[in-house]
Amino acid sequence: MNENIQNILFDIEQYIDNQFKTNQPNSLYEPIRYIMSLGGKRIRPLLCILASQLYKTDYQKVIPSAYAIELFHNFSLVHDDIMDNAPLRRGLPTLHEKYDTNTGILSGDVMLIYVYEYLLKNADNQATNIISIFNKTSIEVCEGQQMDMDFEKSNSIKIADYLKMIELKTAVLLGAALQIGGILGGANDSDAKCLYQFGVNIGIAFQIQDDILDTFGDPTKFGKKVGGDISNHKKTLLHLLALQNANDFQISRINKAYDHEEEQTKIQSVTAIFKELNVQVLALEYQQNYYKIAFDYLEKVNVDKNKKQDIIQLATNLFNREN
Amino acid sequence: MNENIQNILFDIEQYIDNQFKTNQPNSLYEPIRYIMSLGGKRIRPLLCILASQLYKTDYQKVIPSAYAIELFHNFSLVHDDIMDNAPLRRGLPTLHEKYDTNTGILSGDVMLIYVYEYLLKNADNQATNIISIFNKTSIEVCEGQQMDMDFEKSNSIKIADYLKMIELKTAVLLGAALQIGGILGGANDSDAKCLYQFGVNIGIAFQIQDDILDTFGDPTKFGKKVGGDISNHKKTLLHLLALQNANDFQISRINKAYDHEEEQTKIQSVTAIFKELNVQVLALEYQQNYYKIAFDYLEKVNVDKNKKQDIIQLATNLFNREN
Repeated sequence: MNENIQNILFDIEQYIDNQFKTNQPNSLYEPIRYIMSLGGKRIRPLLCILASQLYKTDYQKVIPSAYAIELFHNFSLVHDDIMDNAPLRRGLPTLHEKYDTNTGILSGDVMLIYVYEYLLKNADNQATNIISIFNKTSIEVCEGQQMDMDFEKSNSIKIADYLKMIELKTAVLLGAALQIGGILGGANDSDAKCLYQFGVNIGIAFQIQDDILDTFGDPTKFGKKVGGDISNHKKTLLHLLALQNANDFQISRINKAYDHEEEQTKIQSVTAIFKELNVQVLALEYQQNYYKIAFDYLEKVNVDKNKKQDIIQLATNLFNREN
Repeated sequence: MNENIQNILFDIEQYIDNQFKTNQPNSLYEPIRYIMSLGGKRIRPLLCILASQLYKTDYQKVIPSAYAIELFHNFSLVHDDIMDNAPLRRGLPTLHEKYDTNTGILSGDVMLIYVYEYLLKNADNQATNIISIFNKTSIEVCEGQQMDMDFEKSNSIKIADYLKMIELKTAVLLGAALQIGGILGGANDSDAKCLYQFGVNIGIAFQIQDDILDTFGDPTKFGKKVGGDISNHKKTLLHLLALQNANDFQISRINKAYDHEEEQTKIQSVTAIFKELNVQVLALEYQQNYYKIAFDYLEKVNVDKNKKQDIIQLATNLFNREN
């Protein structure tokens, strides 16, 4: 990462450290400080600020809005972790695990309200515009989470449904981060929309990459356990592509493979059929397609090409990672 | 209730009926329609509209904001019911009981986001002002709920802490409903602040009345079971006043009374000591004090006295109810 990106990351972390330091009751706010301090790549606030820098180098006034997006992202993780009964987040106890479920619900709620407080800071005459964009996006994130939960009980998910789900659940927030940053920097409507589309499409591509790495990643480099999605019988793009391309005999073999009681056998058996059906290559085609659409939109953003280098570097780095 | 109040209530119910009719996924929005259809007295949206009518008779443009307040109130009930493990709400299954806890969390979240969507409608150049007022208020509601949960584990609650808790948890939202309605009608700063204070103080008085009725209400008229607070060992104002006024011997008798296994014996024993300590009268003094402060603030609102009659009628009716 270059110096500019490093500076931004430093400022974001410092801003995060300085929030909710004295709020009372402590039992409500300490959990928020905890979850916000767990780290993560801070991609969303980073993209928000980089988008503003396409128009204005000084980004100090954008930091509260960038923070708002990161706060919302963490709010959604807190509530999702309760819903998924997840014990760990970034290798440490999830908020509801460290405190309790009621605290997780209520601290999450107050995080969501504070998102709007931070979005109002420095937004000046763009405040209602930015809140409208954020409302649309955050509603979609909830709808995506609901679709994801509904999919667990469904056996007739189409690939288009899955792509819509990941678009809503994860990609639109990247789009909104870029769009809001752009607007705060001074982007016109057309640029702001292209930045949004760049974010959404790159977000879908990231998620597909996550699906691929979860099954086909290098166990020595992948942060989580390879095969987790198969172990949990998650209906990822790989799974749906496998079903789409399998004949009746292969479908019954896939179902049998998922039925293995022993986890490693299950992961190996399902992975073997996925390989046989070439799903890694097919998924990669989807990923590259979204990647290309994303960069076509970035191309259309009407600013000097060398100003886009940091966004390009960040996005490229995220695709070259193996974890 | 007079014709104007009846008309407003009709319009509020009709507006409620018309929201979230086609939103997808249905699994996310049907629960919202369910909880919003359960009824209730609709006091908050009613106060919001009546406050706007102090300045402007036609209230059609205020309905979305009034609805936003009612939506927020129901959001908080949905999440509180999960935290309190409550099976029933207005005599029917709570949202998380009818659907499930995950649905309760996520439908609640999306309700909270939609509150901001509705607050933006028709707020025009007051939008950021209204959102700031709402943010402050809704943060306080969460803080009050957290204090309430913290109190369950504490044995050193002072009456001032309790009054602060009910102010945050329930009263400030009544204040905000009136303040926002006033602003949308065209109130100046001074009037808007007096309306807020009227709402907060009348809200505290309502809550104290609830505490009194829960123990001393007429079982044939009170909607809930009389004695519920004692049965749950809730640290209400009555309980705190009893402790404050009891000698050591009476305190040990109170503790013993709460220890009764049989519910009716427990309720009767604790109630008997409350009566002995005169707590109903003491609590009533608190209630009347807040009631008086409230009406002093309403008096200061700089509009013709006869325009205030509907608000006065509504508040008075609410105090004359026995359920």
